[in-house]
Amino acid sequence: MNTNAFSKLSINADRLLSSLQELGQFGALPGGGTNRLALTDADKGGRDWTIQRMKALGMTVDIDGIGNGIATYAGTEDLPPVMIGSHIDTVRTGGLYDGNYGVMSGLEVVATLKDAGIRTKRPVRVAFFTNEEGARFQPDMLGSLVYVGGKSLEDALAIQAIDGPTVKEELERIGYAGQSPENIPHIDSYVELHIEQGPVLDQQGIDIGVVEGVQGICWMEFTFTGSSNHAGTTPMSMRKDAGIVAMQVASFIHTLTQRYGGRQLGTVGALQLKPNLVNVIAQQAVMTVDLRNTNKTSLKNAQQEVLDFAQQCANEHGVTFTSRSLADFDPVAFDPIVVNAVETAAKNNGLSTLRMPSGAGHDAQMLARICPAGMIFVPSVDGLSHNVKEYTKPEDLARGAQILLQVVTELANR
Amino acid sequence: MNTNAFSKLSINADRLLSSLQELGQFGALPGGGTNRLALTDADKGGRDWTIQRMKALGMTVDIDGIGNGIATYAGTEDLPPVMIGSHIDTVRTGGLYDGNYGVMSGLEVVATLKDAGIRTKRPVRVAFFTNEEGARFQPDMLGSLVYVGGKSLEDALAIQAIDGPTVKEELERIGYAGQSPENIPHIDSYVELHIEQGPVLDQQGIDIGVVEGVQGICWMEFTFTGSSNHAGTTPMSMRKDAGIVAMQVASFIHTLTQRYGGRQLGTVGALQLKPNLVNVIAQQAVMTVDLRNTNKTSLKNAQQEVLDFAQQCANEHGVTFTSRSLADFDPVAFDPIVVNAVETAAKNNGLSTLRMPSGAGHDAQMLARICPAGMIFVPSVDGLSHNVKEYTKPEDLARGAQILLQVVTELANR
Repeated sequence: MNTNAFSKLSINADRLLSSLQELGQFGALPGGGTNRLALTDADKGGRDWTIQRMKALGMTVDIDGIGNGIATYAGTEDLPPVMIGSHIDTVRTGGLYDGNYGVMSGLEVVATLKDAGIRTKRPVRVAFFTNEEGARFQPDMLGSLVYVGGKSLEDALAIQAIDGPTVKEELERIGYAGQSPENIPHIDSYVELHIEQGPVLDQQGIDIGVVEGVQGICWMEFTFTGSSNHAGTTPMSMRKDAGIVAMQVASFIHTLTQRYGGRQLGTVGALQLKPNLVNVIAQQAVMTVDLRNTNKTSLKNAQQEVLDFAQQCANEHGVTFTSRSLADFDPVAFDPIVVNAVETAAKNNGLSTLRMPSGAGHDAQMLARICPAGMIFVPSVDGLSHNVKEYTKPEDLARGAQILLQVVTELANR
Repeated sequence: MNTNAFSKLSINADRLLSSLQELGQFGALPGGGTNRLALTDADKGGRDWTIQRMKALGMTVDIDGIGNGIATYAGTEDLPPVMIGSHIDTVRTGGLYDGNYGVMSGLEVVATLKDAGIRTKRPVRVAFFTNEEGARFQPDMLGSLVYVGGKSLEDALAIQAIDGPTVKEELERIGYAGQSPENIPHIDSYVELHIEQGPVLDQQGIDIGVVEGVQGICWMEFTFTGSSNHAGTTPMSMRKDAGIVAMQVASFIHTLTQRYGGRQLGTVGALQLKPNLVNVIAQQAVMTVDLRNTNKTSLKNAQQEVLDFAQQCANEHGVTFTSRSLADFDPVAFDPIVVNAVETAAKNNGLSTLRMPSGAGHDAQMLARICPAGMIFVPSVDGLSHNVKEYTKPEDLARGAQILLQVVTELANR
């Protein structure tokens, strides 16, 4: 094994960029961007195309019980693999890079090794995980959660889509209901390359984000039930207005984020009023709450404050309140083995770096439960993501993939 | 003419109650209530059935250009008629009484005259006006507004439904595109009998509400446009969250109603977020604002405060704000001729009365532009309306119709 041969390897930027464009054709939206919700026909198209590429690179491909696509490029020894992973599902109005960039870069790493005719000591495994976005099935990061044994396959398969069918039905429909191994896979280490999806690197002009961990996430759904009534004849004091309760709770969450400061985030992205008419007081309001913090205690405190306020506000308005958890993930710290490898590789390439947490949830936080894991971030122009205008400059995409190549080959030659 | 014959007349309560039940079959909802949005197939069913009844009473029926159904029961002299009117369209989740009660009671008055074989001096005219609710086409009270010349027929016909087609298209589709007269009709006086749709009479145990006027109404639609972005990676300070602006404006409106007190009402009944997903900051929020007050100056002040706050809040969040007026009606005072006639008739029947404003908009406020007009209210149990549980006790329904009979015969014999 000639380590020098690995240090001279260079990814093919044009090939990487083409692969992102090609994958983006599945579920392409008019005017740009992608709608490839998990386990839809568009997702099946992206999966089929990706698996074809994996096979063309000489990788062995497995589909597990939750539909994760897992391709392995053999090493020179039969050791636990170094894994590169991310996802190829998108939100309803997503871009070309979120998730896709990590998977396509993983395949670019393998393609580079194949072109050079060399293999690492450990196998290199590239995976796309099912339903990372959580935009069609909840919770998000479902495929990687099941992969690491954090949720039973049976429970996961029974989850219902926002449009009706279960995970199981949709996996069978698109031909991605595979077999999971008996035991949780033995993985040497895991690296995920991703666009930042936030504005920090772009604004500060930094090349590479060295991700130290992922903030905790708390998703809840609140349902307020009051009484629909005529908006002109019901005195303010006699209303049971489910809508105003929801909107006051949303305002409270916004104020709470200002009061907590630091890394506390709070978002009400979805709200549905019934009957949703100009002159009828809302009988029902269903809203989502998305709270995030890198500090576990702060996150729990914020959640409790929001629940308490929602109950109190509902009481004051004579409205009933119920809540259910949609997702609940503690903050995760990544392993220094991977974090340091990323930082060293970037510095060796003369790139500027910033140690930072991830604002978004990623499959890497699930893999961190079973092996040393870490992430590499590249800048997102204007921080836009989950948006059809999501964009990362070609030179940044190429740099990230090159760092991924160096980190993975270093870990895989250990 | 024997005035004594009129004072001895008594409406047939069973016939009135049956007519309400029968009309309620058109657009009946499973489990009770009615969905008879204006100019839908269900509305056509209710219209056809009502016109059949009108004709069976020997009334001449006209359909005007906006689809109002206008039936006249001839008097002994060719004088301007006394008009009884209301509407038979409902909101999406309406009850059996709102509007329908006024029209069916008008026909009950005519049926009582017919049974007795007597006619008043002036003709008695009974009308149902198109799209009073404004739940499918805006503004509300459209038919009566056009009837009194407050809006050109051409403009009214071009209005688009929330589900797409124009008033003209829907009138033609259901066969209710009639001919309007050249001039604004000459009406002697107008009386509208209606459920209160609020809790005041029911709570205070009063039989008859003597309606002195209608509060002013201001309906607006606000559109906030920001930027959709990832809810986990976008710092609070860098968001352009259209959703939180809308919800803060809704909270502001609620607080404003408390600050103004008195008869100031404010409702946000409809709000639509885009893309409406748990982990995506809303790019767009479209909301309705419904402000009402019996005092014109207060109402204008409230409207300006809400507009100013919406603009300021949008600016603070880096979100753009546009608004459009959906309806704008000044408070209306009813004519003492009609108001006093209602009060006197109720007192002569030993009923308790309360002088009060109407909280809801009614066709009567449009008719008040061209003739002396007034209204009679009966109690709504728990004040419920625009709700499938809307209910008025049979004895209250009968009392109201009896007062209507006496007021109308008195006015029509002048």
